[in-house]
Amino acid sequence: MSLINNLTVIGVGLIGGSFARALKDKGAVKEITGVDIDPLNLKKALELKVIDRAETQLPASIKEADVVFIATPVRTIAGIVKQIAPFLKQGAVVTDGGSVKSEIVELCDRLIPEGRYFVGGHPIAGTENSGVEASYADLYKGKRCILTPTANTDSSALEKIVKVWEAVGSEVVFMDSVKHDKLTAAISHLPHMVAYTLVNTVGEYEGCDENILKYSAGGFRDFTRIASSDPKMWRDIALQNKKPIIEMMDYFTEHYSELKNLIVNDDSDGLEEFFARSRSHRESIL
Amino acid sequence: MSLINNLTVIGVGLIGGSFARALKDKGAVKEITGVDIDPLNLKKALELKVIDRAETQLPASIKEADVVFIATPVRTIAGIVKQIAPFLKQGAVVTDGGSVKSEIVELCDRLIPEGRYFVGGHPIAGTENSGVEASYADLYKGKRCILTPTANTDSSALEKIVKVWEAVGSEVVFMDSVKHDKLTAAISHLPHMVAYTLVNTVGEYEGCDENILKYSAGGFRDFTRIASSDPKMWRDIALQNKKPIIEMMDYFTEHYSELKNLIVNDDSDGLEEFFARSRSHRESIL
Repeated sequence: MSLINNLTVIGVGLIGGSFARALKDKGAVKEITGVDIDPLNLKKALELKVIDRAETQLPASIKEADVVFIATPVRTIAGIVKQIAPFLKQGAVVTDGGSVKSEIVELCDRLIPEGRYFVGGHPIAGTENSGVEASYADLYKGKRCILTPTANTDSSALEKIVKVWEAVGSEVVFMDSVKHDKLTAAISHLPHMVAYTLVNTVGEYEGCDENILKYSAGGFRDFTRIASSDPKMWRDIALQNKKPIIEMMDYFTEHYSELKNLIVNDDSDGLEEFFARSRSHRESIL
Repeated sequence: MSLINNLTVIGVGLIGGSFARALKDKGAVKEITGVDIDPLNLKKALELKVIDRAETQLPASIKEADVVFIATPVRTIAGIVKQIAPFLKQGAVVTDGGSVKSEIVELCDRLIPEGRYFVGGHPIAGTENSGVEASYADLYKGKRCILTPTANTDSSALEKIVKVWEAVGSEVVFMDSVKHDKLTAAISHLPHMVAYTLVNTVGEYEGCDENILKYSAGGFRDFTRIASSDPKMWRDIALQNKKPIIEMMDYFTEHYSELKNLIVNDDSDGLEEFFARSRSHRESIL
């Protein structure tokens, strides 16, 4: 017996497409309906057999769904839940992959009607690529997926979503949505803000009369990878998780000022200590 | 006929060891003498046959050398040149791999006696690892090596060093040493300062009551790689290239403030443009 009879994936890009592919690979789903704002991407998803059926209208796409996975930009998720809520069948579970959670979870708890359920989720996985062609079945394998249940979350709906993520190879962790947003601001959003800033800084530096980017080596290229992530997606994340991101950006500024002062003051011991601290933080995660 | 009869490598670590291995592989050198401040590393270099002969005394190590390659921390290079200068044989060429050039080049031009030559160099290659065991023959293959000749540089000595770097697979570029230091501050030193700061910021954040580092995904791990580079080496680089690094750090701060203001002001279009600019800088180097 399949884990899910009818799955609807709203937004069949890297995240939604990889979710669909993984569940198909595991035989965990009978039929997948895909919806996408981009007709070409949707057509491609069908051609690649990532989905079985393509729909362009939201209400029509979810009428038969047992599980709905929303993998669209974070800013659009609550609006989509609002649109589909009246058409969900009895017992349907809606979940999402948005990387900012507290606002979405709060809104969706209120939007979902009696007898239908919402479970907020965020798989900690991704690449700098987007679109269904970038999706692949192993994206979630060995990765963490954070679920953010609230006091209102139905326990059997939660259990179902846990099983789905475990089926695609993820380790599920429960977390309060506010804490989640602070954590992702630190571990993901700040690094992206810093990488984007760095690439713009170096790319726009005109102080040495040379196309300096062509001299870039490994270190700089590491940064450019994440700084080439989808601008629209990151615009939405920056707006949606504004407060925790600004808090982390200010915290970065404190450390950056500390480092600059060490250089200005030729503080040899202080510099070595600053750099060594960094190495030991890294060792703690290897 | 070998390109070099007697080569002395001072500092047989990642840079010096890889240089030695590559030249041996190409049959471009007859005999390599290695010197290192760390006796265990030197012993290992001999065991691994990266060098043919180990020396612990600087003057003794370079007496027969046709070419001397100094691959020690930048802060020590001019001092080493001063120590060996009186013992260099007629026609010997000294070069280095230091990633900061203007001060070294200026000092060494004055330190080298008549009939012996100095050519400043900087191979744009490296990894986060150090020591002779991390060295490998292909490190310089397909990479750029910047040489920083001055008005005093002997043309046949320069030609010799060009041939040596070409032999190990590098593309040689000539550049003024001051310009070089600005370029490396932008493309390499600033990214390292930013990465070290980011890793300390995230590693020391206590606002979410959780070991946040264990949730780190690809983006953050990219940063930690360069932020685990040798603290002593980066201490020296930060001190040696102080002015250009501070200039770049301030320039980064301008861009960072621009981004923070966009978020504070919920400037959706401005954010998308900021992130899209970054992507287009990246595309220009792929």
